[in-house]
Amino acid sequence: MSTKHYEFSKRVKGINASPIRKFASHSEKAKKEGKTVIPLNIGQPDVVTPKEYLSAIAAIDSSVIAYTSSNGINEAIDAFRDYFKTLGMPFESEDILITTGGSEALTFAISTLCDDGDEILVFEPYYANYNTLAKISGAKIVAVTTVPENNFALPSYEVIKEKITDRTKAILVTNPNNPTGSVLDRSEIELIVKLALENDLFIIADEVYREFIYADKGYISFTEYPECLENLVVVDSVSKRFSGCGIRIGCVASKNDEFIAEVLKLCQSRLCAPYVEQIGTAAMFKVDHSYIDEAIKSYRDRRDLCIKLMQNIEGTVCQIPDGAFYFILGLPVEDAEDFTGWMLGEFDVDGETIMLCPAKDFYATPGKGLNEVRISYCIAEDRLIKAANILEKGLKEYRKVKGLE
Amino acid sequence: MSTKHYEFSKRVKGINASPIRKFASHSEKAKKEGKTVIPLNIGQPDVVTPKEYLSAIAAIDSSVIAYTSSNGINEAIDAFRDYFKTLGMPFESEDILITTGGSEALTFAISTLCDDGDEILVFEPYYANYNTLAKISGAKIVAVTTVPENNFALPSYEVIKEKITDRTKAILVTNPNNPTGSVLDRSEIELIVKLALENDLFIIADEVYREFIYADKGYISFTEYPECLENLVVVDSVSKRFSGCGIRIGCVASKNDEFIAEVLKLCQSRLCAPYVEQIGTAAMFKVDHSYIDEAIKSYRDRRDLCIKLMQNIEGTVCQIPDGAFYFILGLPVEDAEDFTGWMLGEFDVDGETIMLCPAKDFYATPGKGLNEVRISYCIAEDRLIKAANILEKGLKEYRKVKGLE
Repeated sequence: MSTKHYEFSKRVKGINASPIRKFASHSEKAKKEGKTVIPLNIGQPDVVTPKEYLSAIAAIDSSVIAYTSSNGINEAIDAFRDYFKTLGMPFESEDILITTGGSEALTFAISTLCDDGDEILVFEPYYANYNTLAKISGAKIVAVTTVPENNFALPSYEVIKEKITDRTKAILVTNPNNPTGSVLDRSEIELIVKLALENDLFIIADEVYREFIYADKGYISFTEYPECLENLVVVDSVSKRFSGCGIRIGCVASKNDEFIAEVLKLCQSRLCAPYVEQIGTAAMFKVDHSYIDEAIKSYRDRRDLCIKLMQNIEGTVCQIPDGAFYFILGLPVEDAEDFTGWMLGEFDVDGETIMLCPAKDFYATPGKGLNEVRISYCIAEDRLIKAANILEKGLKEYRKVKGLE
Repeated sequence: MSTKHYEFSKRVKGINASPIRKFASHSEKAKKEGKTVIPLNIGQPDVVTPKEYLSAIAAIDSSVIAYTSSNGINEAIDAFRDYFKTLGMPFESEDILITTGGSEALTFAISTLCDDGDEILVFEPYYANYNTLAKISGAKIVAVTTVPENNFALPSYEVIKEKITDRTKAILVTNPNNPTGSVLDRSEIELIVKLALENDLFIIADEVYREFIYADKGYISFTEYPECLENLVVVDSVSKRFSGCGIRIGCVASKNDEFIAEVLKLCQSRLCAPYVEQIGTAAMFKVDHSYIDEAIKSYRDRRDLCIKLMQNIEGTVCQIPDGAFYFILGLPVEDAEDFTGWMLGEFDVDGETIMLCPAKDFYATPGKGLNEVRISYCIAEDRLIKAANILEKGLKEYRKVKGLE
């Protein structure tokens, strides 16, 4: 072919590959070589999706699968509304727009608030995909560091305040947190409300792991603080709650009707969210609460097991996370990316190895998280036990090979 | 509430409401007043979606609806590949990324090619949603005018060339065209290929109405010109082909592997396209070709009827469109938006009225299209006959009331 002179947008060129999916090719190679790869890298639970989802879809008999309202179908909107009501969150149907997953909800929220060069405040380590979702709008992620020594609690008012500039548009909070598993307590919620109100910032509350809290302190909603309702955007998704990551239905909820009106324009640009997914989602919300209770119990048991296993491995550092199904694990290595690749390429125990998720890309500050990985414990207990054994042996061997002993 | 000082992004503030959905509230009001509103405004066909779609989904028995590959599931990718092959289009599986509708495919293509201020060349009148999809990336639509007198054929090389600047990244072509119904002939295809190659531009070929061509000239693919394959992006969707607008599955296809690698990053940012829709889509492509043949015949009959009816109305101007299911209709009014609102609010024939789509927003050049509407004829013939009768009577009454006679 001839030499072309086109170039792609700086925006897209500047996006890094997903750290969660970064080692996919290494994993494929390991599998081709006959190895079994236990995934500790991805938040894909093995919990069964409520049967209500597929059975509601199977009952659809529409002859034409037509466009729906850009806002979403009433059944899905009302399902989210009723769900929020059970948590005391005062969202009415007109405050809710159905989105194609939580990722679209986040993209729409950020695009509505940020022009090129505007800033979003987040707490690092943070869900690395925020980098991409912000870059799509030209927005910049500004990170406030939280540290494992303090179990990733928020720093003081002054430390956060220092990062706020006249370009800051919002504080993006993940509660419960991915990747740290931390859960905001009342003083932290109030700190964010105070900062948002003092600086006219929006709070984007990404709460897709809302149910999965194992600590006594429980979930606290920003909606308990009526003074911040005009500044609050809640981003939600059914992916984790109902173990349906392939469902791709979420929502944006806000009492700020001007904000909702702007987001609706973005909803109109993609015409509508998928119809059958919305029907299935509405039905799924009717599942008995025991479904969620059992999922919570299962994740708590796995957390307890996984933390105990990991803390028993020599040289690792981790604290007990309060929620979600992730935690950050410090490893006795210099470069967790190199170790992750080595485990897939060079190591196995009886034909089995593990796939880790290096934590470096969860940090915006260079040099942070180099020896850390994110552990996702949403897989069965026997696999967690095997994985911990493989990690322990792998670390010993790696440290020997690399002269780290 | 207190006075807030936040402001929303200029990007989103700059987006206009969809012209196709602009009069939705007028229509709702008319319906509440007991009127029946016949929609001539929206491309929502009444043709039945292939049964294969829902039956394949009903057969899914996965216990967990998990994330799929960000590229799309193999079944869906291969279905598009095989379909393209039947048309002689040389796309392999690795050249195809499944998207959540054609709108996401367009957004991803534009975002990958354009930074803030970069330009996309289109031919006006054009699908108004391009304005929004471009604005999301900060890209600017630059319009080359086509005129009804020439049945919206492309202008000369020189006229198009004049609009190309050093910020132009792509020519976005809708073939068959929405809203004009025009279909590119060989000389027009070659003109675009020549301009793209001379100026290192991408061709974004939005061909979601590909099957719906009623003229002898037939469909010509840009892939017949191997010299432009590196510059070519085909955007596709199942919405119109299979009358499944609520399905939201489309794709981006390109032989430019660097381009595909960049778009894949955007695919990863939203994790995956919805799973069950992909399963249904793969099955739907297996529908017997008689399904498409019957749809084409039905649309051709409706076109012939609708054009005849409209041409018989005093003062209207339209030519026979070659494809899609739209055409531009000139009306003997000064302001088609005012007329559209008046028809919904003030007029009916035996309790029935019509909803039109004013064409002004399909033009970028101010002052163009003010007396035009886009007619969508994808509804049943008896409704078209009724609609034409209502339009004729409405025009007479409106011209009398407004003193236009």
